[in-house]
Amino acid sequence: MSNVELEAFSEWLEHLYDPRSVAVVGASDDIKLPGGRVLQFLLGYGYKGAVYPVNPNRAEVQGRKAYRSLLELPERVDCAIVLVSAAASVGVLEQCAALKVPVVMFGNSGFAETGPEGAVLQARVSEIAQGAGIRLIGPNTNGIINSRNGFTATFSPVLDQQGLVLHDGPVAIVSQSGAVGASLYYDGQRSGLPVGRLYNSGNEIGITLEMVVDAMLDSPANITTVLCYVEGLRRPDLFVKAARKATLLGKRIVLLKSGVTAAGAQAAAAHTASLAGEDRVYDGVLHQLGVARARGFAHLLDIGRVLVAYPRPFGRRASIASISGGVGIMLTDALERAGMGLAAFTETVRAEIEPILPQFLGLQNPLDVSGGPFHYLDRLRALLQIFDRNPESDFSIIAVGAFERRQMEIAEVLADEAKKCAKPVFALWFGGGDQATRYLNGQGVPCFLDAERLVQAIAPGLRRDPSGQQALPDEFQPNVAAARAVIDAALAAGRTVIDEVGGKRILAAYGIDVVDERVVDSPAAALAALAALRLPVVAKLRSDALVHKARAGGVRLGLDNGVSVGTAVAELLKLARDLGLPDADVVLQEQVPPGVELLLGAKRDATFGMVVTLGIGGVLAEAWDDVQIRLADGALDVRDMLGRLAHQSLLDGTHGQARVNAAILAPTLRRFARMVVDLTDDIEAVDVNPVIVHDGARAPTAVDTVFFLRGKAS
Amino acid sequence: MSNVELEAFSEWLEHLYDPRSVAVVGASDDIKLPGGRVLQFLLGYGYKGAVYPVNPNRAEVQGRKAYRSLLELPERVDCAIVLVSAAASVGVLEQCAALKVPVVMFGNSGFAETGPEGAVLQARVSEIAQGAGIRLIGPNTNGIINSRNGFTATFSPVLDQQGLVLHDGPVAIVSQSGAVGASLYYDGQRSGLPVGRLYNSGNEIGITLEMVVDAMLDSPANITTVLCYVEGLRRPDLFVKAARKATLLGKRIVLLKSGVTAAGAQAAAAHTASLAGEDRVYDGVLHQLGVARARGFAHLLDIGRVLVAYPRPFGRRASIASISGGVGIMLTDALERAGMGLAAFTETVRAEIEPILPQFLGLQNPLDVSGGPFHYLDRLRALLQIFDRNPESDFSIIAVGAFERRQMEIAEVLADEAKKCAKPVFALWFGGGDQATRYLNGQGVPCFLDAERLVQAIAPGLRRDPSGQQALPDEFQPNVAAARAVIDAALAAGRTVIDEVGGKRILAAYGIDVVDERVVDSPAAALAALAALRLPVVAKLRSDALVHKARAGGVRLGLDNGVSVGTAVAELLKLARDLGLPDADVVLQEQVPPGVELLLGAKRDATFGMVVTLGIGGVLAEAWDDVQIRLADGALDVRDMLGRLAHQSLLDGTHGQARVNAAILAPTLRRFARMVVDLTDDIEAVDVNPVIVHDGARAPTAVDTVFFLRGKAS
Repeated sequence: MSNVELEAFSEWLEHLYDPRSVAVVGASDDIKLPGGRVLQFLLGYGYKGAVYPVNPNRAEVQGRKAYRSLLELPERVDCAIVLVSAAASVGVLEQCAALKVPVVMFGNSGFAETGPEGAVLQARVSEIAQGAGIRLIGPNTNGIINSRNGFTATFSPVLDQQGLVLHDGPVAIVSQSGAVGASLYYDGQRSGLPVGRLYNSGNEIGITLEMVVDAMLDSPANITTVLCYVEGLRRPDLFVKAARKATLLGKRIVLLKSGVTAAGAQAAAAHTASLAGEDRVYDGVLHQLGVARARGFAHLLDIGRVLVAYPRPFGRRASIASISGGVGIMLTDALERAGMGLAAFTETVRAEIEPILPQFLGLQNPLDVSGGPFHYLDRLRALLQIFDRNPESDFSIIAVGAFERRQMEIAEVLADEAKKCAKPVFALWFGGGDQATRYLNGQGVPCFLDAERLVQAIAPGLRRDPSGQQALPDEFQPNVAAARAVIDAALAAGRTVIDEVGGKRILAAYGIDVVDERVVDSPAAALAALAALRLPVVAKLRSDALVHKARAGGVRLGLDNGVSVGTAVAELLKLARDLGLPDADVVLQEQVPPGVELLLGAKRDATFGMVVTLGIGGVLAEAWDDVQIRLADGALDVRDMLGRLAHQSLLDGTHGQARVNAAILAPTLRRFARMVVDLTDDIEAVDVNPVIVHDGARAPTAVDTVFFLRGKAS
Repeated sequence: MSNVELEAFSEWLEHLYDPRSVAVVGASDDIKLPGGRVLQFLLGYGYKGAVYPVNPNRAEVQGRKAYRSLLELPERVDCAIVLVSAAASVGVLEQCAALKVPVVMFGNSGFAETGPEGAVLQARVSEIAQGAGIRLIGPNTNGIINSRNGFTATFSPVLDQQGLVLHDGPVAIVSQSGAVGASLYYDGQRSGLPVGRLYNSGNEIGITLEMVVDAMLDSPANITTVLCYVEGLRRPDLFVKAARKATLLGKRIVLLKSGVTAAGAQAAAAHTASLAGEDRVYDGVLHQLGVARARGFAHLLDIGRVLVAYPRPFGRRASIASISGGVGIMLTDALERAGMGLAAFTETVRAEIEPILPQFLGLQNPLDVSGGPFHYLDRLRALLQIFDRNPESDFSIIAVGAFERRQMEIAEVLADEAKKCAKPVFALWFGGGDQATRYLNGQGVPCFLDAERLVQAIAPGLRRDPSGQQALPDEFQPNVAAARAVIDAALAAGRTVIDEVGGKRILAAYGIDVVDERVVDSPAAALAALAALRLPVVAKLRSDALVHKARAGGVRLGLDNGVSVGTAVAELLKLARDLGLPDADVVLQEQVPPGVELLLGAKRDATFGMVVTLGIGGVLAEAWDDVQIRLADGALDVRDMLGRLAHQSLLDGTHGQARVNAAILAPTLRRFARMVVDLTDDIEAVDVNPVIVHDGARAPTAVDTVFFLRGKAS
């Protein structure tokens, strides 16, 4: 979609959530049926627009005059909700087209999700809608909700109850599963999360989740936090765009993706690509884009609570006051595991706390306050202010519980005092506290029932180290023509694989240090080549047909004089003859001194396109299985990528190896990423392993590589 | 404690929970004070025994006649609850001693937890109690609860509320933190977990958590599941004993330990030992003992729900019926991540399901059933029975939600039908369902609000593969005298370290294959030694003063003829002279062909004593950081230990290495464990790295090792 189209869509979305009139096609008296529930909800939740039941067989539905068809309505409605069978819905859509109804929601199932016949029907529906300029929601969606005006265009039984009051707010939920979206909406509402809007995208024939997310960010309804449930992105490009827009606007997107395991993906009837890999791509790319990733339904709502209360990122040092020493320890454990920690209590802080606590309690963080501050609430207020003033502290946690009868009294004081604090305040309520928890969440003091849940919810709200994100100036200008010449030559020769010799020419053209090497085809040529190489060298047999050089005996290490080089080359060429490899020659390569072996890679991901990989390399790279993946982008944050690798002791010199210096590695990674971007149309994947990182200021050296080209077919 | 003492304690515990009369010393009218709340709870929760308030300043407390001291009571009470100041409590205890009160609970703080003065007071209290044969609960405990008889000897404000009815049941909660224990008790009770008893152990001067856990297992009150919150085990030996008893009785212990990170441990003012390591010891030992480990408060109760409902271990294949496709996928992801999976639906199963579902829904597992079976509950019953009959299925999960108004109707049918099933049934209620969740848990159908939580709760209930647990017969008889001779010689020479040569003699005496080697002190001796060794060999300089042989240039590899061996030995001895190492000699060692490098270790853990380690070895063992730790025990389950290592691809031949065969490795590990048990009094730690595992039936070879002895001081 162009920007103009997105803008038009964004306006349309506002109309969608605020129609003046709506028709329910398939309206029923029976609330076991979708057409019964939609009508009941629209009439019951305060929607002020006109509501027209349409049912050819009834004069009245739920006490309202019913119409036999859309054609008989007294006005052109803003929105038609269609709940008749899939087959019958085609005719209804044709009526909508004739009447120029701008919004049509297809709540019915029976389309592409059921198989080939349904897919044909869906294509027909799509065609009619497109022809008439109708933006169709669904099919197979259970609808949308606007909390502000009571426009509850959904048949989810979640609203079928008494006493539910919808609270408006800056959170939007956008879901590819109707049941998931509805339950998230309800659990959010009843736990005090201010969810203003719900959108369930269903089969997404016209409107995809990404379009809605993007438009929500522009909404005049001031949506600041968008919570998404995704089974598979249909428009990842648009999602990336929306995520970048969110960052600029200071808004946040949180994403829960299902189908992340092989079995889960099969259950989702999803992509055929390697799923474990794909999930890691999501992980890396979402992190890169600043999109928080949720691990489950509760986690999605929990993150939402934190981000809507505290949209500005905060630091990692917590001050804790806990009714129980045990809970304080559990919180400390959970914080430490998540990379957070305890704020230092200065002398001033201790001196201020002392009068508040009984003498037998200690003054260290986490503070075991026992019941006092909850019996005598002025002490609770004082503690919060002391924490807030401490320059060593970034946020406060009050852990309380077991005050079932007095929970609201405590919660009200906590909420009131938290509003006076400059820094975030969180609550952990352990032992009862349902009402207090709901109240505190509603008041913007995120409250949790479990230490681990609290900490996992906080993590996406933390400030990121910005030091590595700025692109360092890099004067180097790549020789694109030289790189492309290598590719063109390979393609001209009908090859889609470029071996290490050609690959290193491409890398060198992009300013990446590569090992010095010469290709030779005789012992005499080898001796001549030695003039240009430093000893010792490695000799490797090279042939298109030879995949595992080392296993075939085709690699000789540590050759440190002319005689051994000559002998090795002669032996390798004999081996080639024995193996029947007429194209074979030998690569003589300087032996690079040992350092930290990393890998650099690129591949075409089925969802996000070309992505770049940085990880632990060497012969056991697969066993380490420790990589970070990002969208190919010239401003990659090397420090952040290194910092998120699991095996940190391989990077910090612990084992007597070199230390990996992010500043030295940065140009290599960024030039590699630039190469990937430049050559995107030509390459399918690149593997550089090992890249040897040296001590000191020497740039990393690429020792081995292979390029896979897309070839002409693609 | 001897078995007889434990038996006596077990009887005592039953009296503790069922006293005929109780005195509250420090009783008050003010329920902000502990002495106010205990009295209120005892009078309010239906306890039928006599309750005597003791308060020197009041004639009446809470409408009951008050006594000035214990000495004035009309009878000798079974239990005295003491809530006066720490200083005043000594006098009260002396009265208890004089009156021969069998149970005294010290709820007051101000003892060892506050510093040296409190510790002195605590020692005095301990002395009086011991002298009088009083078993004292606490001090610094907030008490105990018996749900059956309303004996609520606690001042936790958790009970200060209206409408709470205590439900008896087979779950016991035993906690080292009073606030944690009380909150767990309450959250358990109100969520339908049948918690019969709560015990908060406080400062544990006479009675430790382990004693109580052990006694609970023997209780005639039929406790089947003991949930523990632990900050540090004081009697780990007793805990191990109790865990083994639980296994024999078919009962289960679940443990939540706090202070597992360095910061958490500091907060807990706990042990000084390396905590990261220590936590791994807990992990391995608890797994070995069949004790489920909880990661947080909610997880502890969740596991309790599953184990109390389904005490018999079950298999890993789930049948899922979900109201939402999305929830089905999330469940599948969560199951797969936790090592469980989906049951196959046979043709029969599909044929049976088909009539129940609308045609547009698929028949694969996880079953997306939409709303039908929840609107028409006979379909729900039928589905459960179909799942239960499927021989491919081990347990069923019903995922429902969003039926707030009809939740109890659905829950009752689910509970009723689940009782007719032979296999476990679990519920996931997503979108509301608080009342249904509570009801289902109370009915023994564990119900959760989140897919991940459900799966994490199920995991400890699964059947373990018993194949590796039986000790294979091993005819080998170790030469204990030979091993001890090496140790004695070292100790006699004033050494507490035994190097690889001596170490391998000990290993060999225990039937572990070691690399063939000879120690030589001249090139001539080296040539003579070659007669007994296979070429190539490795030459290593050996000296007590030489820690990093390789870094000092003291290792020569791949010596494949007499000349190179002679030269290497001469050079190494020269190096020794240059380095000023008068004790140096050279070890000539057969070069072992490459295989999988593992490590075997033993160390004296501060909590559990000697433990054995099996993990990924080699020079980067620390970087892999991938080990399993167990109590030293001759019946170690090698298959299970290997299976829980993280880097499985290093074990299965993926990288062209040998495959690690558990059956071949088993004797090596078990003989090593036997050695550790035999030599426990002499050794402090052992490191064998690498142990090279070969392809085929050849036993693994220990290549390098070091033994650390305890020395005479200990």
